[in-house]
Amino acid sequence: MGQPLDDAGLDTLFRTARSFNGYTDEPVTEADIRAIYDLLKMGPTSANMQPARFVWLLSQEGKDKLASFSSGTNAEKIRKAPAAVIIAMDLDFNEQLPWLFPHAPTAKDWFGDVDGRTPHAFRNSSLQGGYFILAARALGLDTGPMSGFDNAAVDAAFFPGQPNIRSNFISTLGHGDPSSIFDRLPRPEFEKFNRVE
Amino acid sequence: MGQPLDDAGLDTLFRTARSFNGYTDEPVTEADIRAIYDLLKMGPTSANMQPARFVWLLSQEGKDKLASFSSGTNAEKIRKAPAAVIIAMDLDFNEQLPWLFPHAPTAKDWFGDVDGRTPHAFRNSSLQGGYFILAARALGLDTGPMSGFDNAAVDAAFFPGQPNIRSNFISTLGHGDPSSIFDRLPRPEFEKFNRVE
Repeated sequence: MGQPLDDAGLDTLFRTARSFNGYTDEPVTEADIRAIYDLLKMGPTSANMQPARFVWLLSQEGKDKLASFSSGTNAEKIRKAPAAVIIAMDLDFNEQLPWLFPHAPTAKDWFGDVDGRTPHAFRNSSLQGGYFILAARALGLDTGPMSGFDNAAVDAAFFPGQPNIRSNFISTLGHGDPSSIFDRLPRPEFEKFNRVE
Repeated sequence: MGQPLDDAGLDTLFRTARSFNGYTDEPVTEADIRAIYDLLKMGPTSANMQPARFVWLLSQEGKDKLASFSSGTNAEKIRKAPAAVIIAMDLDFNEQLPWLFPHAPTAKDWFGDVDGRTPHAFRNSSLQGGYFILAARALGLDTGPMSGFDNAAVDAAFFPGQPNIRSNFISTLGHGDPSSIFDRLPRPEFEKFNRVE
């Protein structure tokens, strides 16, 4: 139903957009972060569960803390980036359903115990992580998503006393420095990973 | 680095976009599907693994087959939609890394056994599912993502003899009929699910 994007918009989101290793000195502000969240939160999730929980790190102290739990080259990227973010998930997302999915009073009980809820939290917080990446790009920002870090250590450091909150992935955020990246990696022809029936 | 989208673009992707229960009679073509994939495949995945595998159902026979494994109201939505898609994942995605991540010849062995690879396949195919939803919107199409279906039955029916391929979620696809949806469900204030440090 929406108006299709023009070529510049498709480039910004997908075609020329890249993940960045380094960024310009231009800062990321709390207003930028709130604008990203105001877009990404509109993306669809199962039963409107919105299980993603975000910790946005603007301070050097916060970025250094996250970097200390990240592998090799990732740590340096995080320390130097204008901002970093932890995309986490709430395994007890169902506690929020009475107000997020108000027309179905039993929705809180649809997703079983924590083992039953975990794949829903993982799938839907990952979807929201994808919305984060594309919302940042839509606003002219760039990201550098990463999964090479010590999840348990990040969870203990950033979510103490909240065993229901688990980190999913992390990302840097800023205005990308083109000199920090290499050529784009291969993308397949349609036939490789798709079929039509 | 990209040019920020204008208000119409942000509406198309996030602000006024919706998941649809029903669609107009306007068909979805194979050209539409290929255009969606050409965008979504550009989205980032860990080590360029691109674990998502897509089965696009344009025929009534294909849609009926998927509907037969879907719960209650989902089945009827699938049968009547112009198209449906299975977003699946390849747990043996690492076999593709020699050509998808060619500068790191050992990448094929980075992700361990199938238990180690599964969360990477799940996270990254979910990200690619998010790219699918937003790529469709960017091209003026609409989606109706769903996870209420019998995964094992879908896998047996659509991926026989391929135990490494597992369905993640499914979606309808078409040009949304505004009369098929209700009011948008609640979205939280920033403070509810975010913090800044």
